[in-house]
Amino acid sequence: MLFSELDAKERERLLLRLKEEYRSVKEIGLSLDLSRGKPGKEQLDLSDGLLTAVTRGDECISRGTDCRNYGIPDGISEAKELLSELYSVKKERIMIGGNSSLNLMYDAAARAMLYGVAGGDRPWVREEGGVAFLCPVPGYDRHFKICESLGIRMINIKMTPTGPDMDEVERIVLADPSVKGIFCCPKYSNPDGITYSEQTVRRLASMETAAKDFRIFWDNAYAIHDLYPGEGDDLADIFAEADAAKNPDRVFYFASTSKICFPGAGVSFFAASDANLAQIKPIAAAQTIGHDKLNQLRFVRFFGSAQGVLEHMKKHAAILRPKFEAAEEILERELGTTGTASRTKPRGGYFISLYVTPGCAKRVCALCEGAGVKLTPAGATYPYGNDPDDSNIRLAPSYPSTEDLKKATEVLCLCIKIASLERLNSEK
Amino acid sequence: MLFSELDAKERERLLLRLKEEYRSVKEIGLSLDLSRGKPGKEQLDLSDGLLTAVTRGDECISRGTDCRNYGIPDGISEAKELLSELYSVKKERIMIGGNSSLNLMYDAAARAMLYGVAGGDRPWVREEGGVAFLCPVPGYDRHFKICESLGIRMINIKMTPTGPDMDEVERIVLADPSVKGIFCCPKYSNPDGITYSEQTVRRLASMETAAKDFRIFWDNAYAIHDLYPGEGDDLADIFAEADAAKNPDRVFYFASTSKICFPGAGVSFFAASDANLAQIKPIAAAQTIGHDKLNQLRFVRFFGSAQGVLEHMKKHAAILRPKFEAAEEILERELGTTGTASRTKPRGGYFISLYVTPGCAKRVCALCEGAGVKLTPAGATYPYGNDPDDSNIRLAPSYPSTEDLKKATEVLCLCIKIASLERLNSEK
Repeated sequence: MLFSELDAKERERLLLRLKEEYRSVKEIGLSLDLSRGKPGKEQLDLSDGLLTAVTRGDECISRGTDCRNYGIPDGISEAKELLSELYSVKKERIMIGGNSSLNLMYDAAARAMLYGVAGGDRPWVREEGGVAFLCPVPGYDRHFKICESLGIRMINIKMTPTGPDMDEVERIVLADPSVKGIFCCPKYSNPDGITYSEQTVRRLASMETAAKDFRIFWDNAYAIHDLYPGEGDDLADIFAEADAAKNPDRVFYFASTSKICFPGAGVSFFAASDANLAQIKPIAAAQTIGHDKLNQLRFVRFFGSAQGVLEHMKKHAAILRPKFEAAEEILERELGTTGTASRTKPRGGYFISLYVTPGCAKRVCALCEGAGVKLTPAGATYPYGNDPDDSNIRLAPSYPSTEDLKKATEVLCLCIKIASLERLNSEK
Repeated sequence: MLFSELDAKERERLLLRLKEEYRSVKEIGLSLDLSRGKPGKEQLDLSDGLLTAVTRGDECISRGTDCRNYGIPDGISEAKELLSELYSVKKERIMIGGNSSLNLMYDAAARAMLYGVAGGDRPWVREEGGVAFLCPVPGYDRHFKICESLGIRMINIKMTPTGPDMDEVERIVLADPSVKGIFCCPKYSNPDGITYSEQTVRRLASMETAAKDFRIFWDNAYAIHDLYPGEGDDLADIFAEADAAKNPDRVFYFASTSKICFPGAGVSFFAASDANLAQIKPIAAAQTIGHDKLNQLRFVRFFGSAQGVLEHMKKHAAILRPKFEAAEEILERELGTTGTASRTKPRGGYFISLYVTPGCAKRVCALCEGAGVKLTPAGATYPYGNDPDDSNIRLAPSYPSTEDLKKATEVLCLCIKIASLERLNSEK
């Protein structure tokens, strides 16, 4: 029954009962964490073969290069080829980095601030009045932190079921030359699990921008992270669209193996057009002699091929799918008829995105915390940690065991009900 | 016999004979490389145990942290403790990075440009008229590339047998507030192999600077890289000196395991005072979720202790010493009495630094190149690639086999003699 249709007395009675339940939960002294999109132990174990993929000195040679030594600043060919096939990105466009695509994104933004980008007139720090980025919301908190850290002004763009609200995006980038970029997580977006439609990708690639040095930060973090392999979403090819629209330099592409094998010791890559690479490579050469080539080699040796990676991703899906389904089942059972929360039904990625009654998200997180269940802080999915509706809650079901996840989701549902009733009571 | 004491006819005859010799060498078609300070294969093999130091999932746990997963942005305690003991740097001051200390130096400089440093008034990019660094010369080309890339003006400071010319350093930093830093390779300096005296370290730590946000970039790349273990140079403790002089925030300390184990897949670290870390850590947190903890763990497991690393360094010395001695013997035999080159006699590090007749270094490198021997380009050891005396040549004896090194050094000596005679002939 919809909570909003209960009369005051019924609400009061229900709230009392739920608070009683909450007190009992508190007494158990849970300590559960749904806050970060971290693979669980079982998922990590899938990749333990990486640890023995290269065990002798003579195995460290990749096409004549000793991966133990210095050199090859943009990565070994073998790894580029595998990544190229896996992500359908031309090998020539790829620069392999260290273990973190976030680091590549930060560096790309910091570099733009200090040096500008190909085709721009000046470093972004020299733009009077500063520069701004569009931030589809809700989105990935660490994208927003990069902007905040570098003093890049953030402009919220509402997400729709087909990606960011493109009418709004097109309007702003055409009107405001200080808007230099947009952060996108285009497939199984963090946190909504939305995949940008072909139309959205095409409009992003072809739209007219007042800034001639506009950049799309294309964080394809969940490119092959289907929960239902074989029935996954399709994402249009941003490079093909940008090339076709004669905006080849607009795209900064990022991805990593963090959620394919080991998050702490994987391989990231950056991809961009020739003109972008021509500007960036000399700067990157001042920054480092080269990234970890042994990890690149381990990756190639362990997986063997792009097909090998895709087979591996099915094993991740087999572990993750039951967790997502368990959480969703509880959310449906507990909240389905209450009208207290809507949610996305992601077919991939790492998150379930909940929208609770506006004004309740912070209260829900506080209640959960009080009962020993840690959530991503309410607001974290918005720039400056500020969700204007105080409504979005991001669930990360991957890390806890299914057992713990179920307990945590039940507590969460309880807290959502309590917060919603409190809200209803305060309104009437 | 000193070439300068030969008469014109003797010089002419000698030059003809040497050029004949040069032609024969050219015909052999050598392809030798003394250009970079890369460990040789035999040295890399010493550390192959790293490849099997961690081979099972359950071995990836360090004090409860699964090193395969995300997290621990500044490095695992076990690794910090080992590095702390090895480098005599307080554990609390250490932040572990990726595989490259150069990357940490670039990032530290770029961060200072974008954000400023602790105690400064503004980001260095906001300083009118720009900022400058002192660069002891000859020095490490990649330090200079960082400054050049970031638009940091470079001021040459002459090296002396006790380190940079401190009278000059003190004079400039006191007079010019735009001078924000100095790049130092304080032990077995690149390329001269000079270790800064205690007096030099103390003066650097305590000198008065016009810029209140002055930083010493202390690249202790060869801290434990003695050619004569047990008889190595001693370097004074820069942190202790800076603390004593009440300049605790002046020091940015860098080092890495690149020339201890695998250059391509090692562990680097940055160390600094509490105030510096308090400013830097939130910025670093926007940059990455964490560096490769498995490499940190491999490092700890393979070496076991600081003592284990020092024992390992003796094996490097045993491989490197004969190479240095072979090169030095040839240089002495071929050039000792000619007055055409002076050289440093390093007791550690990776280089031999030669000073040929002023105006001859470029010609020597060109001649060597013509005969199939690649040297670090003349001038590379100076900012902007410009050696005002055109005299310094850096030899890196580590990478080639002793056999190849001997051949290459003989060719080098031949080229030095030719260039010197040409020069003498052109002068008279």
